Amino acid sequence: MGANTNVRFSLPAVCVVWQTAMIILFGVFIRYDEESDPHWLEHKKLNNISSDIENDFYFRYPSFQDVHVMIFVGFGFLMTFLKRYSFGGVGFNFLIAAFGLQWALLMQGWFHSLDYTDGKIKIGIENLINADFCVAGCLIAYGALLGKVSPVQLMVLTLFGITLFAVEEYIILNLIHARDAGGSMVIHTFGAYYGLSISWMLYRPNLDQSSRLQGSVYHSDVFATIGTLFLWMFWPSFNSAITDHGDGQHRAVINTYLALASTVLTTVAMSSLFQKHGKLDMVHVQNSTLAGGVAVGTAAEFMLMPYGSLIVGFCCGVISTLGYIYISPFLEKYMKVQDTCGVHNLHAMPGVIGGIVGAITAAAASESVYGHEGLVKTFDFEGAFEKMEPTTQGGHQAGGLCVALIFGIGGGMIVGAILRLPIWGDPADDNCFDDETYWEVPEDEEIFDSSIY
Amino acid sequence: MGANTNVRFSLPAVCVVWQTAMIILFGVFIRYDEESDPHWLEHKKLNNISSDIENDFYFRYPSFQDVHVMIFVGFGFLMTFLKRYSFGGVGFNFLIAAFGLQWALLMQGWFHSLDYTDGKIKIGIENLINADFCVAGCLIAYGALLGKVSPVQLMVLTLFGITLFAVEEYIILNLIHARDAGGSMVIHTFGAYYGLSISWMLYRPNLDQSSRLQGSVYHSDVFATIGTLFLWMFWPSFNSAITDHGDGQHRAVINTYLALASTVLTTVAMSSLFQKHGKLDMVHVQNSTLAGGVAVGTAAEFMLMPYGSLIVGFCCGVISTLGYIYISPFLEKYMKVQDTCGVHNLHAMPGVIGGIVGAITAAAASESVYGHEGLVKTFDFEGAFEKMEPTTQGGHQAGGLCVALIFGIGGGMIVGAILRLPIWGDPADDNCFDDETYWEVPEDEEIFDSSIY
Amino acid sequence: MGANTNVRFSLPAVCVVWQTAMIILFGVFIRYDEESDPHWLEHKKLNNISSDIENDFYFRYPSFQDVHVMIFVGFGFLMTFLKRYSFGGVGFNFLIAAFGLQWALLMQGWFHSLDYTDGKIKIGIENLINADFCVAGCLIAYGALLGKVSPVQLMVLTLFGITLFAVEEYIILNLIHARDAGGSMVIHTFGAYYGLSISWMLYRPNLDQSSRLQGSVYHSDVFATIGTLFLWMFWPSFNSAITDHGDGQHRAVINTYLALASTVLTTVAMSSLFQKHGKLDMVHVQNSTLAGGVAVGTAAEFMLMPYGSLIVGFCCGVISTLGYIYISPFLEKYMKVQDTCGVHNLHAMPGVIGGIVGAITAAAASESVYGHEGLVKTFDFEGAFEKMEPTTQGGHQAGGLCVALIFGIGGGMIVGAILRLPIWGDPADDNCFDDETYWEVPEDEEIFDSSIY
Repeated sequence: MGANTNVRFSLPAVCVVWQTAMIILFGVFIRYDEESDPHWLEHKKLNNISSDIENDFYFRYPSFQDVHVMIFVGFGFLMTFLKRYSFGGVGFNFLIAAFGLQWALLMQGWFHSLDYTDGKIKIGIENLINADFCVAGCLIAYGALLGKVSPVQLMVLTLFGITLFAVEEYIILNLIHARDAGGSMVIHTFGAYYGLSISWMLYRPNLDQSSRLQGSVYHSDVFATIGTLFLWMFWPSFNSAITDHGDGQHRAVINTYLALASTVLTTVAMSSLFQKHGKLDMVHVQNSTLAGGVAVGTAAEFMLMPYGSLIVGFCCGVISTLGYIYISPFLEKYMKVQDTCGVHNLHAMPGVIGGIVGAITAAAASESVYGHEGLVKTFDFEGAFEKMEPTTQGGHQAGGLCVALIFGIGGGMIVGAILRLPIWGDPADDNCFDDETYWEVPEDEEIFDSSIY
Repeated sequence: MGANTNVRFSLPAVCVVWQTAMIILFGVFIRYDEESDPHWLEHKKLNNISSDIENDFYFRYPSFQDVHVMIFVGFGFLMTFLKRYSFGGVGFNFLIAAFGLQWALLMQGWFHSLDYTDGKIKIGIENLINADFCVAGCLIAYGALLGKVSPVQLMVLTLFGITLFAVEEYIILNLIHARDAGGSMVIHTFGAYYGLSISWMLYRPNLDQSSRLQGSVYHSDVFATIGTLFLWMFWPSFNSAITDHGDGQHRAVINTYLALASTVLTTVAMSSLFQKHGKLDMVHVQNSTLAGGVAVGTAAEFMLMPYGSLIVGFCCGVISTLGYIYISPFLEKYMKVQDTCGVHNLHAMPGVIGGIVGAITAAAASESVYGHEGLVKTFDFEGAFEKMEPTTQGGHQAGGLCVALIFGIGGGMIVGAILRLPIWGDPADDNCFDDETYWEVPEDEEIFDSSIY
Repeated sequence: MGANTNVRFSLPAVCVVWQTAMIILFGVFIRYDEESDPHWLEHKKLNNISSDIENDFYFRYPSFQDVHVMIFVGFGFLMTFLKRYSFGGVGFNFLIAAFGLQWALLMQGWFHSLDYTDGKIKIGIENLINADFCVAGCLIAYGALLGKVSPVQLMVLTLFGITLFAVEEYIILNLIHARDAGGSMVIHTFGAYYGLSISWMLYRPNLDQSSRLQGSVYHSDVFATIGTLFLWMFWPSFNSAITDHGDGQHRAVINTYLALASTVLTTVAMSSLFQKHGKLDMVHVQNSTLAGGVAVGTAAEFMLMPYGSLIVGFCCGVISTLGYIYISPFLEKYMKVQDTCGVHNLHAMPGVIGGIVGAITAAAASESVYGHEGLVKTFDFEGAFEKMEPTTQGGHQAGGLCVALIFGIGGGMIVGAILRLPIWGDPADDNCFDDETYWEVPEDEEIFDSSIY
């Protein structure tokens, strides 16, 4: 193993310095919002709030915890499928999520939750959800790079990824006024192209030297299924976590639930149809079954209609599975993009589809379907956007998608260039996908010594 | 391996055709209900609803997600215990649940949620929970057949299973007016006997040719424990998910929590007592510890009393464990019922006990215990049943149990006959319980090559 | 294997007798409270409660389920890391939790929920949460003893542990009037020192005879990570589960979320810095990342401030990881304390830090920060404590910490003396950490026979 993978000083240094910076910045900027501050009692009286249950905490906390599980167990375990990179998959996912959410609270806070009266960011449960969302973008990018980068590189990727995310999110949601409840554009499209561009910049022509480790074993596939299922089950919470109280959250859940169900069937169909002997491939079942959730992200809160959700899920199951079979090998061979987890099939294509579905659904909105008040509330046609028409909104949605693509690809290329510097302790081509590089791995031989058992 | 297990065309065909049918039927029939539609804002005003938190979403969503975890992770991982059928256990569980919930929304919708003004089914969060419940019946049936059927057979089993479920549920709950919050009768009794009858119809006299694969290995047992624990922990949510708001949900949770706790102790006691050297058997701990949750399903919302719940759990732990030790071998040897997961011990017997406990508890209800309003609300003594007496209700409960048994056994025999047709690609006797049959299984030898590590 | 490990009669006897005792005691003492009783409808009217959503069930149930997952999956899977004690880790955790919660409902009920009008304990959702909390103390103690005790000893440990817990909790919370929302003192300090004292009493000088089994294997480490992540993710629910409705729960979640995030970074930093070649140690990532959650337990509901939470987490990640590297070997070698899971590093030290942080934060409280009403509500300055000052409260907090230490150490020594009796079927020094002792373990050789696959 090359001495260059020793991160004994760089990793602790980055962790301690950045965590210290977080403490200082939190000390300067972050405070509790009015619903998490003890003055809530007075706030309640002043605003004629009749009950503690009106605290946003009770509208959002169950969804928050589901999203939290998706980030740490869902993404984490989905990345344990490699035979000898399970520690790195779930462990580095844990590390960068824990750092990312702190930085996200600051970055998103400056854009969205700054109280201009005192210059402080006021945080509550919705900020925690948004921080988790922001982290999701970086974890998607990690999926493309799994096994090929050092933890220090991942910390750098996360620092820049969160920063870029907060800026593109502000542009898309606030300046362009696109809606993106489940983040098809803001999270999935951005995150996937960010990771794919970095992977392109870090292309390893001799990666086949690690090919012995680039597959799964039986039990690592079962571990990865834990990630798949928690993502699949809680995706309705993801897409509804920050939508409007009441019908908005309710509808987003129904649409996501249905799209995901539909995706499972077409994924299984395609996986069986395109394999020899009709045998199913676990890679498809682990990943493509989730594509429907990505693709209804933007439109989940709209009147996509139950059958519309099923159609979106149907198409994404087909496209995502075919992507694993045909597009991923093509990208690796001809485009020099090595995509370990296939995020192009699970996040990039479905994310773009989600952006388009969102634009179409928004453009097709009408008062006859939503009611006047419903239309205003769903699309937030208020303030400067009071006179906006659904068709215009459709155009803005499309604009949002472009911004996400530009930030993903452009940001990824810049960050990729930085990560090519020879100072980050990344593994050599022949010890990629190997936990031995960054982890103390227990000796396994002993359990095969039948003299003990 | 026999060529007959190639499902390369049948499985994709079934998945695509049925999913397409779902899209068409959803297009024709399924719409959002008033709480998930943007007209909610107007609905709120018209009905003097003061807050979005009164949307049923907030009463039911946390329970829904718990039930969802039980269906996909609970049932799925419980079926990973076989040494080489973990992919099939969790994967096919995923497939049939994803299909089943769509068909259940339609079938249950026609019976329970049809809006006669426009002929549409209006769905909300409660429909999603009921669809998950409906699917649970088919997953229980799958437990009896695990490893012995093809995915195409499972899709057929699910199509008919959901249909039968919706009919028996309508008869039991609406026509007979039995109460069954946690589905001891409707879900567990029906599902278990449905699966056992199919297993009887598909009896394989030479199944011992696969006996080398019919056990667990160390880590597959740990995987199965994940399923056990998520079922055990979230069972209170299952039994309370659709009970009355307020005290109904609250009480159902307490009763289920206690019954399950009690079951664990007697399961451990029996497992130790009836094994050589007093060693515990993981099969019992994985399964029988759940029997108490099944058996308080019907009565969970009634005044079963905390000690009553403990007694039910106590008995079920004993009966279910003894079932694994004595009754399952008897059923296989003399009754020609091969029950892979032992659903007779986990669902059938406890389900019947649950129906009986429900009947007794209902018959013993009185105004002095429930209060007048409490009695009316708990047993829904309204409309045509306004003058119903608790003792009569007890009789109706018993009638409901009989209907569940008849539908389970009768339906299972009919569907079993269909599944005997030689067109479904089921495995030969010597490749049952083997993921190689329907899955691309990774090569495992490599990790034992110590030259690499 | 020594014949003395046969628990064929003692384990069933203990389980059946104690479960029977629970049924009798529940029959005599336990009833539903007013929110889980059918008279809720009348209670609502009498108290002008406008909606079922005001039932405490809806404020607490999602948190309860998260705590429940922590107890059974979190603690259970965290203890699966040993290569051949996964069954015992998760299985005995299940057993003692299921017993403990019943006994806790009684013990805590007598102290906190006794209705003096009829001499009955009235239980609702908050009692279930408290029972789970109470159980957590015993599970922490189990962590110190993992692999070295018999299930019968664990049942005895739990019986006494719950009893001691209820008494110390009553003294700390009610008599001393200390606040301890997340149980840094009441749960973690007590539980850890209880277990460590027992371990000291049961010191095994020849434990190295089992040293071949005292490590992990690759997949057992991945299983343990499931436990880690569910503990980590749901810890905000743990610390907020029984805090005040509204801002109290909201703030406790934010503080815990931040403390835990900070801990991850410093744990990784220390783990890398103090290992050869900078490689990370899974033991640290599995355990020390949780220390921040322990240490903000007491102060989570106070105005610890977001940066304060980060600081607490920062320090605990450092201390806990260094504890694993330096203090645990010291304790084993010089203090004769064998601590299998390192609860001294994960619960004892962070628990004491949590108590101190709580005392300081309480002493520093002021009306300018909390508002008058907020101060009264947060610290419960009502009734006999109406005129209490924050500085005095700080002193009482410190007093509470001392009580927890005394009960933990003293109780552990007494119970340890009882557990030294030669009647409990504990394993010999050379079959510790071995599931063969108390479980039927499946044969694993077969899967290595490549002729089958």
